[in-house]
Parts: sequence; C-alpha cells; structure tokens
Amino acid sequence: MAPDSAALGHVRHRVDRALQAFVSGQRGVLLAAGDDLRPGAESIAGLLAGGKRLRPAFCYWGWRGAGGPDCPEIINAAAALELLHAGALVHDDLMDASDTRRGQPSVHRQFEARHAGRGWRGSAAAFGAGVAILLGDLLICWTDEMFHASGLPPDALRRGRPILDRMRSEVFAGQYLDLLGQAIGDETVAGALRVVEFKTAKYTIERPLHLGAALAGAGGALTGDGGTASGDGSLTAAYTAYGLPLGIAFQLRDDILGVFGDPAQTGKPAGDDVREGKRTVLLAIARSRATAGQAQIIDRHLGEPLLDEAGTAEVRAAIAGTGAVAECERMIGRHVSEAIAALEGAPMTGEAREALAELAVAATARDG
Amino acid sequence: MAPDSAALGHVRHRVDRALQAFVSGQRGVLLAAGDDLRPGAESIAGLLAGGKRLRPAFCYWGWRGAGGPDCPEIINAAAALELLHAGALVHDDLMDASDTRRGQPSVHRQFEARHAGRGWRGSAAAFGAGVAILLGDLLICWTDEMFHASGLPPDALRRGRPILDRMRSEVFAGQYLDLLGQAIGDETVAGALRVVEFKTAKYTIERPLHLGAALAGAGGALTGDGGTASGDGSLTAAYTAYGLPLGIAFQLRDDILGVFGDPAQTGKPAGDDVREGKRTVLLAIARSRATAGQAQIIDRHLGEPLLDEAGTAEVRAAIAGTGAVAECERMIGRHVSEAIAALEGAPMTGEAREALAELAVAATARDG
Repeated sequence: MAPDSAALGHVRHRVDRALQAFVSGQRGVLLAAGDDLRPGAESIAGLLAGGKRLRPAFCYWGWRGAGGPDCPEIINAAAALELLHAGALVHDDLMDASDTRRGQPSVHRQFEARHAGRGWRGSAAAFGAGVAILLGDLLICWTDEMFHASGLPPDALRRGRPILDRMRSEVFAGQYLDLLGQAIGDETVAGALRVVEFKTAKYTIERPLHLGAALAGAGGALTGDGGTASGDGSLTAAYTAYGLPLGIAFQLRDDILGVFGDPAQTGKPAGDDVREGKRTVLLAIARSRATAGQAQIIDRHLGEPLLDEAGTAEVRAAIAGTGAVAECERMIGRHVSEAIAALEGAPMTGEAREALAELAVAATARDG
Repeated sequence: MAPDSAALGHVRHRVDRALQAFVSGQRGVLLAAGDDLRPGAESIAGLLAGGKRLRPAFCYWGWRGAGGPDCPEIINAAAALELLHAGALVHDDLMDASDTRRGQPSVHRQFEARHAGRGWRGSAAAFGAGVAILLGDLLICWTDEMFHASGLPPDALRRGRPILDRMRSEVFAGQYLDLLGQAIGDETVAGALRVVEFKTAKYTIERPLHLGAALAGAGGALTGDGGTASGDGSLTAAYTAYGLPLGIAFQLRDDILGVFGDPAQTGKPAGDDVREGKRTVLLAIARSRATAGQAQIIDRHLGEPLLDEAGTAEVRAAIAGTGAVAECERMIGRHVSEAIAALEGAPMTGEAREALAELAVAATARDG
C-alpha cells in the first residue's frame, strides 16, 4: 500500500486499536471455556494485527460522504468488517491450501505444526483444518458482535443490517462461483470477471460504502436483486458507480502482484498464484492472447505446487509475453478513472470525495 | 424424539414454516449471483428440512416462561438458532469426515459426489470440502439476518444480542476443546464432561433459554465469566440450574444412541460413533471401568472406519459389559430429575414449567 495514503492511514490506526480492544475482550470469553483456548486466541490476535483495513476505510468514508460525523462508533462498526474478512481469509487459505498469510504461516498450518511438533494423536493436517474452520467461524460470528456493540444508535444499526447481510451472502456466493469455475475449467475472461464482481468488487468496496451510507441514514433500501431502490439512493448509486470498477482494478492489481509481486511487500511467496493455479482475470486474458508455445508453458507449470524459481520465471515471461500484463495495466487505469469520475457531482461531502479519490489510487497503485 | 411431546410439536411446525420462508427468500439472493448457485441453495433447503428444532423450542419456552406472549416474532427469532446449528453441523460433518446427516449424504459428500460424477477438474474431496465450508459460513451468517429480521422490537433484540454472541463463542470454543482432547488423547470422564458443558449443555439448552428470557425482558446481564448477574436473574439462574444437567443428560442419550441406536431412528449408520472413534462420556466411563479384555476390544475397533457388523457388535458387548450403559442411564435419570426439580419454585408461568418438564423428558427419552 502506498505509504502516503492519508485517507487510509487516518482510519487504519483507529481500526487497529478498536480491533485490539475487541479481541482482548473476546480472549476472556474464550479462556472462560478453558485455558486450552489460549493458542486459538493468540492465533486470532496475530492474524488481526495485520491487514490493510481497506473495507473499514471504505465503510468509514461511505459514512463521512453521507454526512456522518467523525466518531469512535463508526470506527467500531467499520472495524467489524475486518473480523469478517479475517474469518473468510482463514477459510480461504484452508480451501486453497495456502501456507502463508500476512507473512506468517496460515492458521491451519500453525495448528498442523503444533500437532506434529507435539506428536499428538491422529492426523496433524485434519487437526489444523478443524481448528481453522472453528477459528474462522468464530471470527465470522464476531463481526455481528462488534457491529452491534459499536455504540451506534439502534436505528442506525437497523438501517445498516441488511447491507451487512447482503455483503456476506454475496462474498460467500462469489467464493462458491470461484470454486465451481475452477472445477469446471471455466477459463473465460467473463467468468473470471463475474467472480471478481461478487468476491471482490462488491465485498471490498461497494458494500462497505453502502454500509457506511446506510448507517449514516443515506441510501435507498436494497431491492430484491441486490440493487438499491431509487429515491434517496443517488449517493448509493454513486458509490456503486465508483465501487464496482474500482473493485475490478483492485483485483487486477492483486492478480499482477500474485504473479510478479515482491514477497517482502506482499507477505506471500513469489509467484504464489502460479503454484496455486489461481484462475485470475490476468491469467484468463493471457490465455486468450497466448501463442501455442506460451499456452503450453502456462499449462505445464500452472498449479504445480513444487514449482521452482526457474519455472516461475518461465511462466512470468510467458504471461508478460502475451501482453496480458500491459492490458491489465490499461484496464486498471481505465477503471480507476471511471471510479474517480463517478465521484464528480455525487451528493457527498468534499472531504469524502477527496479521500475516496485518494483511496482509489492507494488501492490500485500498491506494491503489496 | 417421543412423538407425544406437545411442547416441542407446538413450536416445531411453526419453526419449520419460518425457516422455509426465510430460506426461500435467501434463494433469490444467491441466484442473483448466478444460476450456478442453485445446487448450493437446494442443499441448504434439504438440510434445513430436517432437525428436531430443540434449540428453537428451548428459546421459545424461555421466552414464554418469562411472560412473553405467543407470537410469530419469537418463532422467527428462535428459528434463527436452527440456522446456526445447521451451519455448525455442516462444518462438524466435514471435520469428522461424516458421510451422512439427517438420513442424507452430508453436504461435503454431496458436492464431492457431484464433482466426481461430472468428471470435473482437480480433487473431488477438496471441492466438497470447499463448498461445505462456504455453505456452513452462509448458514452461520444467516443466523443474524433472521434474528434481526424477526420482527421483535429493537429493544428486545438489543437485550438478546449478547446472549446470542456468547452462545456462539461457547459452542465453537467447545468444539475446539473437543478437537484438542481428541488430539492429546484425553480419555478422562472429566475432560469429556467439560466438552459436553460447552458444546451441548450451554449451547443446546441453557443459552437458548437465556436468549428467550432476555428477549422477553427478564434475566440478568451476562457477567464476564459467562454467568448472569444477580438482581432480576433468578429466572435465568433457574434456567441454568435446569439447562446444564439436562444438557448432560441429553448428550448421554446421544452417546448411547451413537453406539446402540437404530439407524432408522437416528438417521445415522449403526455404531457410527464407534467407527468415528468419538470421545464420548459413555466411552470415557466404559474405559474407566473396563477389564483388560474389554479395554483391548474397545481399543482395537474404535476409530476403525471400515468396522463391520460383527466388530460393531463386539464393541457394543464390551461397552455394555463394563456397566457403562447402565451407569449412563442412571446419570440420565438423576440429571433429568435435577433439571425438573430446578423448575419448582422458579418465577415462571405454569404453562412454561409444564412444557419444560415435558421437553426434559422428550429430549432424553428419545430413540433418534
């Protein structure tokens, strides 16, 4: 993340503190069940110490844009999204068999190692998977707890609740589409973009903005198909027009970093997406443009868990050779411009407009 | 479940209908993300069609006992607990590698079979596991959605919210203790009872009763250690005094059915707990009383996934031979009496007292 993003930094430190306070309270609840829960509580605290806090930042600025005042209560409510995200990541890493997260071993690997190191009974992998499922469930549940204990007035929470509900159904639906696309071998750009819409664009940007707006009292009610009804919905419509293209740009940057990123910046091994065989938009574009030779290299190495540095370099060269990276960079530029243009004339405070424009750049120009 | 339980039947059909209505609404939300979500929506609907609705029944009678009126709103709020339970079961079946649930293939097996049958790419087991994680997550999230959309007044929801939060942290903490106990080979009766306290007694009976009471405006606030403060807490104290022993009796009945139950009644293969090597109180008692010969038979067969009928019969005979079944039946009788005695003199309506006494019998005298 670009270090100069004041709009993000402003929120980030306060979200960090709110999460620390919440998690330290939850630690007591867990330890009341038994001191054996300590490693679980520590693993959660470690995971939550990291993260860019993007979703809380969009929620916060969605609130401010709708005229909501700067106050600790909105920070608490926004921070709750980070608990959902952490829970989804724990489950995601298990499903993807990822070894690392935020520069640390993933949760299932931590507990697998604990089991193996102590010579416990049964399968260490099954133990790690079980603990990851349970800790992820806890984090997902804590989203609601922190949201409702945020201190925002009951009326505000009642307005925000349906957006939070929709956001969660959408992200898990998006992940389901992702799993399915991988299974059926959907390698189209359109298929990859549909996953990005639900799994990233709505979840990371559009819905957090809508949530902030709804909490502040702006924004139309959700319609059956997940859009927002017209009426007082022109702010939420602007948030959608900003959030969806920006979400795609954000994911395209992630796609590029997943193949070409610096491990010191990303907190993940180099070329992780290649080894995992991740079905990204970048890759779908590369396939659609590849020569027979380039396609062969990509197919040969993709999803190979033990791929070495030479193999990774070969895939990188093949993908770049198709022109897909340049095409993704063009798409990022176009989508970010579209997002920023959507802010012009939208009925929001000037401060929020500036912050969101800044966030758009920070979220897509990052190197980790 | 005993078919003559009016206290349960009264609630059950209305909970069934409330769940059907809720899930049919959610189906629309999922299909908005893509028609590919249909099998997921159908799997959830199928799973929710079954179940004894015990937790909603205790929540409902907790409310009625505190003077809450019979109304559709409390049925909706109580039914939300069934979504949490279904989600936890989906994840539990995955962790235990269980093949069946409520007489149907477990969710991860359904999607594993779908993948294998269609010859999709990658590992069918990993696909099944991934879908089970996601559908479980959805169900867990829907708990809050249904609870907050129940129609109960905001004040009631605000009073109930901390109990729901505590209940969820406790059940996942209990499951963690269970996993850990299995890994470290804790075979003590005390260890098994601690898991039962959190994973069953609080989760199935005590907290649903507390939730109902809190929604109705009775009951003290939660204290830091998960107890309830005194003051107006004499009803919640009575619910605890009823719920904890009853929860243990309920689980002991489950333990006996898991080894000796009739598959036509339980919806699970005969002797399922033996094949899974489940660390139950029944088994802990059997071990503590076993002769060397009995212990050898139990150790040889327990956790053997392909155990045949003859082996199952041998284990059954060994467990029964230790006197553990008779001891569990005595414990059930003692705990049910204790639970029912706790209702006497408690500040609740007579109708609720009768219903809870009836539920105590129904939950522990069942054959499935």
